[in-house]
Amino acid sequence: MTKQARSTWRTLGLTAAVAAALAATPLADEGMWTFENPPLELLQKRYGFVPPTGWFEHLRLSSVRFNDGGSGSFVSANGLVLTNHHVARGQIQKLSTAEHDYVRDGFYAESPAAELKCPDLELNVLVSVDDVTAQVTGAAAPGMNAKVALDARRAAQARLEKDSLSATGLRSDVVQLYQGGEYWLYRYKKYTDVRLVFAPEMQAAFFGGDPDNFTYPRHDLDFALVRVYEDDRPASVEHFLTWSANGAKAGELVFVSGHPGSTTRLQTVDQLQTNRDHDLPTFLRVIDNRLAVLRAYSERGAEQSRQAQTMAFGLENAQKAIAGELKGLQDPALMSKKQADEKEFRARVAGRPEGAAARAAWEAIGAAEQVRRTLIKLQYFRRIDFAGSSLAQTAAILVTYAHEMQKPSGERLPGYQDAQLPALMPRLTSAVPFYADMEEVLLAATLQQSVDELGGADPYVKAVLAGRTAAEAARDAVRGTRLGDAPFRQDLVKGGSAAILASTDPLLALARTAYPLRQAVREDIERRVTGVTTTAGERLGQARFAVYGHTIYPDATFTLRLSFGTVKGYPMNGTMAPPITTFYGLYDRSASFDNAPPFDLPRRFVERRHALELSTPLNFVTTNDIIGGNSGSPVVNRDGALVGLVFDGNIESLVGGVAYNEQANRTVAVHSSGILQVLRRVYDAGRLADELVAGRR
Amino acid sequence: MTKQARSTWRTLGLTAAVAAALAATPLADEGMWTFENPPLELLQKRYGFVPPTGWFEHLRLSSVRFNDGGSGSFVSANGLVLTNHHVARGQIQKLSTAEHDYVRDGFYAESPAAELKCPDLELNVLVSVDDVTAQVTGAAAPGMNAKVALDARRAAQARLEKDSLSATGLRSDVVQLYQGGEYWLYRYKKYTDVRLVFAPEMQAAFFGGDPDNFTYPRHDLDFALVRVYEDDRPASVEHFLTWSANGAKAGELVFVSGHPGSTTRLQTVDQLQTNRDHDLPTFLRVIDNRLAVLRAYSERGAEQSRQAQTMAFGLENAQKAIAGELKGLQDPALMSKKQADEKEFRARVAGRPEGAAARAAWEAIGAAEQVRRTLIKLQYFRRIDFAGSSLAQTAAILVTYAHEMQKPSGERLPGYQDAQLPALMPRLTSAVPFYADMEEVLLAATLQQSVDELGGADPYVKAVLAGRTAAEAARDAVRGTRLGDAPFRQDLVKGGSAAILASTDPLLALARTAYPLRQAVREDIERRVTGVTTTAGERLGQARFAVYGHTIYPDATFTLRLSFGTVKGYPMNGTMAPPITTFYGLYDRSASFDNAPPFDLPRRFVERRHALELSTPLNFVTTNDIIGGNSGSPVVNRDGALVGLVFDGNIESLVGGVAYNEQANRTVAVHSSGILQVLRRVYDAGRLADELVAGRR
Repeated sequence: MTKQARSTWRTLGLTAAVAAALAATPLADEGMWTFENPPLELLQKRYGFVPPTGWFEHLRLSSVRFNDGGSGSFVSANGLVLTNHHVARGQIQKLSTAEHDYVRDGFYAESPAAELKCPDLELNVLVSVDDVTAQVTGAAAPGMNAKVALDARRAAQARLEKDSLSATGLRSDVVQLYQGGEYWLYRYKKYTDVRLVFAPEMQAAFFGGDPDNFTYPRHDLDFALVRVYEDDRPASVEHFLTWSANGAKAGELVFVSGHPGSTTRLQTVDQLQTNRDHDLPTFLRVIDNRLAVLRAYSERGAEQSRQAQTMAFGLENAQKAIAGELKGLQDPALMSKKQADEKEFRARVAGRPEGAAARAAWEAIGAAEQVRRTLIKLQYFRRIDFAGSSLAQTAAILVTYAHEMQKPSGERLPGYQDAQLPALMPRLTSAVPFYADMEEVLLAATLQQSVDELGGADPYVKAVLAGRTAAEAARDAVRGTRLGDAPFRQDLVKGGSAAILASTDPLLALARTAYPLRQAVREDIERRVTGVTTTAGERLGQARFAVYGHTIYPDATFTLRLSFGTVKGYPMNGTMAPPITTFYGLYDRSASFDNAPPFDLPRRFVERRHALELSTPLNFVTTNDIIGGNSGSPVVNRDGALVGLVFDGNIESLVGGVAYNEQANRTVAVHSSGILQVLRRVYDAGRLADELVAGRR
Repeated sequence: MTKQARSTWRTLGLTAAVAAALAATPLADEGMWTFENPPLELLQKRYGFVPPTGWFEHLRLSSVRFNDGGSGSFVSANGLVLTNHHVARGQIQKLSTAEHDYVRDGFYAESPAAELKCPDLELNVLVSVDDVTAQVTGAAAPGMNAKVALDARRAAQARLEKDSLSATGLRSDVVQLYQGGEYWLYRYKKYTDVRLVFAPEMQAAFFGGDPDNFTYPRHDLDFALVRVYEDDRPASVEHFLTWSANGAKAGELVFVSGHPGSTTRLQTVDQLQTNRDHDLPTFLRVIDNRLAVLRAYSERGAEQSRQAQTMAFGLENAQKAIAGELKGLQDPALMSKKQADEKEFRARVAGRPEGAAARAAWEAIGAAEQVRRTLIKLQYFRRIDFAGSSLAQTAAILVTYAHEMQKPSGERLPGYQDAQLPALMPRLTSAVPFYADMEEVLLAATLQQSVDELGGADPYVKAVLAGRTAAEAARDAVRGTRLGDAPFRQDLVKGGSAAILASTDPLLALARTAYPLRQAVREDIERRVTGVTTTAGERLGQARFAVYGHTIYPDATFTLRLSFGTVKGYPMNGTMAPPITTFYGLYDRSASFDNAPPFDLPRRFVERRHALELSTPLNFVTTNDIIGGNSGSPVVNRDGALVGLVFDGNIESLVGGVAYNEQANRTVAVHSSGILQVLRRVYDAGRLADELVAGRR
């Protein structure tokens, strides 16, 4: 499960009716619960577990959000943070050079001084929350049209965030829960000096590569350790997780604390059908296109292959995830069940005061979805910055930034409001490597696909090509651009909107040409679709809330959630998948494929084979309900001790957003004892293992 | 894949149209070819393989049929035969006692004198074949009605068999190929003195138990070694397979020579629908019923559990196999494809001389299937001897024997004709253990299910219960019977029909009561269904033959066949199943389940772990087209050397009878180097390993 999936997972509905049915009977190990509303009754009923005072607070304050998508946890008093290799990978790659490929070879800071500062990583810890539902929903008066109401709510949120930031100095985000049934103000302590401490070699972290990704049984050491610094010294943290040397055991109750990115389990049947028939198939065409381009590029040589690796990995993951989700949606049984559930929910709400509003909401969503179906192609193909060139993305963000900064903060697009600018700046100004040739082929492919999908007569296509072929347009833009140069970008940002809009940089110019056409689609979607479905979804959320209350959990929002479950195998391939895997399995899978990539053993594992106790647990599965964004989350036991590290879901969980299935959906995690084993016996990192066990350096 | 499956696999149709399409393009690794008609052209085209002179004959004469269902091969000049543990298991159990449980503990004859004679095992080697199509089909004159024609052909077959037996002294069977398109007389050298040489403990042979059965990746040492004797001395055999110490390699061309039990790949859509909607669901109800009874019985104690083990294993296998096949048939895509194929075949044959006969055949089959649907319940439930008590089976066979022996040989049921009596006698007269309590609960369950399915008013139910409950009737019959006593049975057989029909033994009496009612159903089915579909199927076979000739292979008939394929993994669970597994995997799977049954390691494997080279191949998969009955078949390479031992198919191959799919269907085999490894390093059977490598003692 890649962190990139956070923004792309579209997951669908455990409906209210099902939730209600489940609320009547035990809910199974389902739910991504907020820490404000943990499933106390369920835990007691199902597991006889009554958390002691402070249990939730300790876990919350030990949990870390990786602001670019992913989760982690403090594991020592000296600011050490455990996460996934694939969550940290972007940073590890940025720290790598032609001489030192830390992604390929791994990294270990033998001494604190050797810890490497990550170029643009921000970590957040959720320190306080407030219910601001009244303030946000009250901002929109009853008679307002959808667009105006949305703007009013956005303005209220921006104001709340800005006021909180001013008052507390803490990062402050308003979070919408229950589809607008509630709004909460979350405040985060933020760490921006984060240094790389340890990463295994890619082949150990991602053994089995794309074939094994999203599957189980698994044999991956997908972990990395970073450390947060304050004032150039390791931060002292009060709350961190005790490391369990024995780790997860089959059958035990475990918890995952992390940041599931996005679920849409309450979408209506109309919305699901748009996803199934229009949105996801189009999305897949884009991914397929880019992967083909990257593969061809990788074949040019070893250096090109290295350059393309991280992006290709992300796209392959997205491809499997979207295809899996689409397959789930195409299951007629799923859609019939969803229809039945919606019917039941309609019946339950009909007799209540919310009934008329709910019915109107369903109708409005149905009409908006008809519109959305006509806009999907424009949405994906009237833009230069989707799943392609990073430089083009940067250019598009700069141009958007230039336009948005000309508006009052509260009217800007999400991400461009004053309180959000500190998070945006590193993306625009930090020095990160770009590979011009790769950027060029990606941009050419993006432009060409727009031609193929929209036709040469499309106004956007005519504007961006300006009589050239896609390849020519990409060459002109990428070869002439200076956007790869951080000081150049810093100057542009310093110069503000005027500088950006006046720049003669050819890629910026291309982005400016694309901008109004892209923006028109975005506004069309916002006005005719999102504005409508947001308001209508909010009404449904309120209706749902009225019927079911806090017995249900809200959709995931990349904010801190708690899930619970059991370490447990599942039926697979006609037999049982085991609750855990061992190092025996790693060596077996490698030997089974004659050590051929992606099943080749890293050199260290060949050399240290006899030093390892091969029966040591390596990975394991649990019934916890998670989704992309949970990558890097700690798995803790009843005592709150860290027994594992979430890094994936099994293939059955690709449709987990639609309907959690305790029989088959599984969280896949690295075992805490496996990590100690390799730190000591493979990586000669005993000092680090000692810190984990002792909880301090 | 259990040998029991031989009689129960109902596999369905690769249609002629598909075959034709495939014959035009390369046929993939498909087909169970006769040695008379090997796929020479395919092998040359696909693999560039041209077998040297004598290659086929050597392989054929090295291949052994286990007459009670299964395959094997000679692996030394001194009559040593390799087969599966599960093929030999019935004999191993019969050789076991309360003191020596060779199934549980394994067996190794340290010296030739210690080799144990199997109580009732016959091995066959196919030494010559003759085409007798003209003699058999000529026996039925064109105007005859179906029943008379069938009888005439059976009489001709019986005559051919008897004459050949008299003339050559060899076991002689007429084999119907291509649904009656051809008849061949097969002559076998037969061995009846067969002695057990080696068997691993059940837990090594069947590691992973029922969950892993029919699946892959796999880690089973499912092999056993027996030796044929002549004149109380090890037989000298001219043809035996050279043992490859390195064994199968990923990607290499391999052959399987063995005895696939039964496929019905040419059944019509009508026939498939009867199987899907009536036959298989009813069959499953019987198996479910018996398994529930055996499980309850096993819980009475360790000895009861031991008694029930072999039968429970067979039933669990059958359950998985039938359920898998039913699932395949319930796939709407499969049935649509079958319908399309049939349509195309109809179109191709329509313009030919065989067209009218073929059309009439389809119609006749359609009408017969309507009849069959009304008879399925009677077929399964008007009998005391189906998938239940062994003693009741013996009783039913004795009663049938008594009746059949009153007819001329040629008019008797298959299995009771003069040439077949030598094969029948051991079943009736040999000393094998029966467990009275288990027999009683099984018979009670059988009778009770007849009541439940047919109702108390059914004439059969009224007759067998005679006013008693099912439990009472079973108790009366089993507690009073002497059929467990071999001398008693030998006397009965010696006394002939009169003695059997006059015996006061209560189980025999029950079998005599059941006989006429069961017999009426059998005759009804034969007259109104089998007689019709056999003749009609023969016409379709002839039509098919006329259209496609020897470019196609005949359905399996538990006679010697050759298949070819490649050692190759396959897509599974979202990733790839490897071409081979290793001993690492055995230890991994055990540790993954905390060594809990059925994943517990045998004690020897715990103790000898460090003696093993864990990267040694253990099992592997190939694309060969096999089916139940192939268990124990050798896997040989281009040089004809033995590289493995077939013991199963993967779960995807459960529908393999319907349509071979090279992408997913796999043969599962034990690796020849894995066998050497454990003989030397785990079982201290170096002498035996030396014999395998040297090809002689």
